[in-house]
Amino acid sequence: MDYEDRFRRHLESLHSEGRYRVFADLKRRCGAYPTADHFTEEGTRDVTVWCSNDYLGMSQHPKVRAAMHEAIDEVGAGSGGTRNISGTTHYHVELEAELADLHGKEAALLFTSAYIANDATLSTLTRLIPGLVIFSDAKNHASMIEGIRHGGGPKHIFRNNDLGHLEDLLKTVPLDTPKIIAFESVYSMDGNISPIGAICDLAEKYNALTYLDEVHAVGLYGPRGGGIAERDDVMDRVDIINGTLAKGFGVMGGYIAASRACCDAIRSYAPGFIFTTSLAPAIAAGALASIRHLKGSDLERARHRERVRTLKGLMTNAGLPVMDNPSHIVPVMVGDPVHCKAVTDTLLTHYGIYVQPINYPTVPRGTERMRFTPSPVHTDAQMSYLINALEELWAACPVANGQYVRLAAE
Amino acid sequence: MDYEDRFRRHLESLHSEGRYRVFADLKRRCGAYPTADHFTEEGTRDVTVWCSNDYLGMSQHPKVRAAMHEAIDEVGAGSGGTRNISGTTHYHVELEAELADLHGKEAALLFTSAYIANDATLSTLTRLIPGLVIFSDAKNHASMIEGIRHGGGPKHIFRNNDLGHLEDLLKTVPLDTPKIIAFESVYSMDGNISPIGAICDLAEKYNALTYLDEVHAVGLYGPRGGGIAERDDVMDRVDIINGTLAKGFGVMGGYIAASRACCDAIRSYAPGFIFTTSLAPAIAAGALASIRHLKGSDLERARHRERVRTLKGLMTNAGLPVMDNPSHIVPVMVGDPVHCKAVTDTLLTHYGIYVQPINYPTVPRGTERMRFTPSPVHTDAQMSYLINALEELWAACPVANGQYVRLAAE
Repeated sequence: MDYEDRFRRHLESLHSEGRYRVFADLKRRCGAYPTADHFTEEGTRDVTVWCSNDYLGMSQHPKVRAAMHEAIDEVGAGSGGTRNISGTTHYHVELEAELADLHGKEAALLFTSAYIANDATLSTLTRLIPGLVIFSDAKNHASMIEGIRHGGGPKHIFRNNDLGHLEDLLKTVPLDTPKIIAFESVYSMDGNISPIGAICDLAEKYNALTYLDEVHAVGLYGPRGGGIAERDDVMDRVDIINGTLAKGFGVMGGYIAASRACCDAIRSYAPGFIFTTSLAPAIAAGALASIRHLKGSDLERARHRERVRTLKGLMTNAGLPVMDNPSHIVPVMVGDPVHCKAVTDTLLTHYGIYVQPINYPTVPRGTERMRFTPSPVHTDAQMSYLINALEELWAACPVANGQYVRLAAE
Repeated sequence: MDYEDRFRRHLESLHSEGRYRVFADLKRRCGAYPTADHFTEEGTRDVTVWCSNDYLGMSQHPKVRAAMHEAIDEVGAGSGGTRNISGTTHYHVELEAELADLHGKEAALLFTSAYIANDATLSTLTRLIPGLVIFSDAKNHASMIEGIRHGGGPKHIFRNNDLGHLEDLLKTVPLDTPKIIAFESVYSMDGNISPIGAICDLAEKYNALTYLDEVHAVGLYGPRGGGIAERDDVMDRVDIINGTLAKGFGVMGGYIAASRACCDAIRSYAPGFIFTTSLAPAIAAGALASIRHLKGSDLERARHRERVRTLKGLMTNAGLPVMDNPSHIVPVMVGDPVHCKAVTDTLLTHYGIYVQPINYPTVPRGTERMRFTPSPVHTDAQMSYLINALEELWAACPVANGQYVRLAAE
């Protein structure tokens, strides 16, 4: 057995498909986001970040940073334990109460990431409710798919946002069989939004729990940043809401919000919650400050909506293949992993524009794309510069038709 | 279907077994660790923390806190993305290089926790190496068990540290079948240590990879804090080392260190690595400072060893049922979940001594215990006070014989 050879062969297949991932080594400039230093073998250069999920720029908000500084000075760096064994700090307790309030639920439960929140909660629900059948949207995030797989129970996949298909599948299971419908509010790679209320109607009709992933919506939508369910006034109809502290709120970590009994059962039975060191106190403190600020301030959301509208308009006017959707995500289709990487490499090296190519397994093969995420702090000048760069690239070579060739200058 | 009722019934069974977990709401005092504020319904009171995995007190080290403050000011709170999509900061890159160096490996890979590092790596190895058979120590941590289960491949469980049993099992599988031996260096609840070199001998003989979890050892053992494998001079014989940044190093997060091809393959194929926001930059910066400090300073380790020796001696002299082991863990057996919780509740409310009761599923039923973790900053006075409290409790009622009754004063 040559184990090294096995690993190398897996890597070679990625190279040959053109989807081997190279991470950009960055240092964002706090106070001057979206600009950043990009570290390369040839030295450091200036870039503008166009693909961050720090959607509202909250990672650099003075209140968030102040709260983190204060927590570090008060209690130190790490929590020192699992939640059960000395790792519950007062910040965690306050943050869970704040999240429960944000979503209008009795309780909330913190995890080290929204990934593990999905994985641990969905797999544990299957163990807590024998016979549970899961109905899962086809575009659900990898973490939900893993959680469902790890639970090991029966599942049905319904076509993305297809209510008819979902109902057809619900009908195939007896009414008294326990069920859960697992879906997202904003699907992050296409930017489309689910009909939460209509899905809740079906859940009621067929006696199913609802599990909603709002990671790309919390902080961004709803009068207090509660997400699409809050915006659509259906938050009370969703049983379990999953969210993140790492995107709209600009920090790190994930959570669920649900009934007291549900959160307590997950808290008590989920290995992915029980057996891991809790979030660092400063992380919890920063998230707490961010949520509190965004509950009371709509400025960031309003500016965000305007910036998104402006960028989409500029791209449409320029004839770029921007994928239409009702959210803050601005995907531009390329359709080939090699071309996609060539375009983004050129943007980075020629224009100092950083947008990561999105390829399989994050999106289906053949739908490789760029995914722009304008934030409240992206300026008009940065947008004009971006559009100009894309126009030059598209003029030089018909990227969208898969006939891209590297620019002679490279 | 009454879903709430299902959840409540699971909780009732925990209450009836006496193992329903109540988290202590704490605020440790940075600069005065191991003291902390304990928040209760009756107000806040002083406690001494005796069960933290911040083994060396590095969470309050000035260098660690300074590095975190600096990173927050330089780049802000969160990283804003997955490692691939804008979430690789220069701190992550430097930290991975530092970890590779610490363990004498070509590369290292960061995860949001050591839990997900184990889960993602072990499950992904099974997918990358078809037919892989896993040999797993019976006392392996829940995260390794979950990773092995999630991989879905064949496995054999060998009795804790039992080389004969491991070899018997290895013999049952053809020599050319791919294999991995997964084990820990310090088993955290008993405090025993594995014979790493002898396990590597068997791995060589039977052509197996070795996967070693050193989470309770990194920072604490070895001349540079590389763990038990470094102390035993066998680091180069272990293929994959798993470690944490949340215990000895005092911050948060986990990692693996291995060959370049192995880390790159896990980086490229593990959903638990790919689809999650990276560690916050300040966390990576704090961990980096901690590792660098402990590579060059043996003071903390020497003082830690002395404190552990002293506490174990005091407990033995007092006739307390301390479980003998060669590590820094000081477990005191109680053997019943209700008694264990009664003892620790009394310690907390009467003496201001915080030690969490350890019960199932963290340890097997019937072996419920207290687990003390003396650190370099626990004083002689704090130790005397602890011993005195335990002696009073043991004198009042024979705890170890399961005949404990709550003190009249309560």
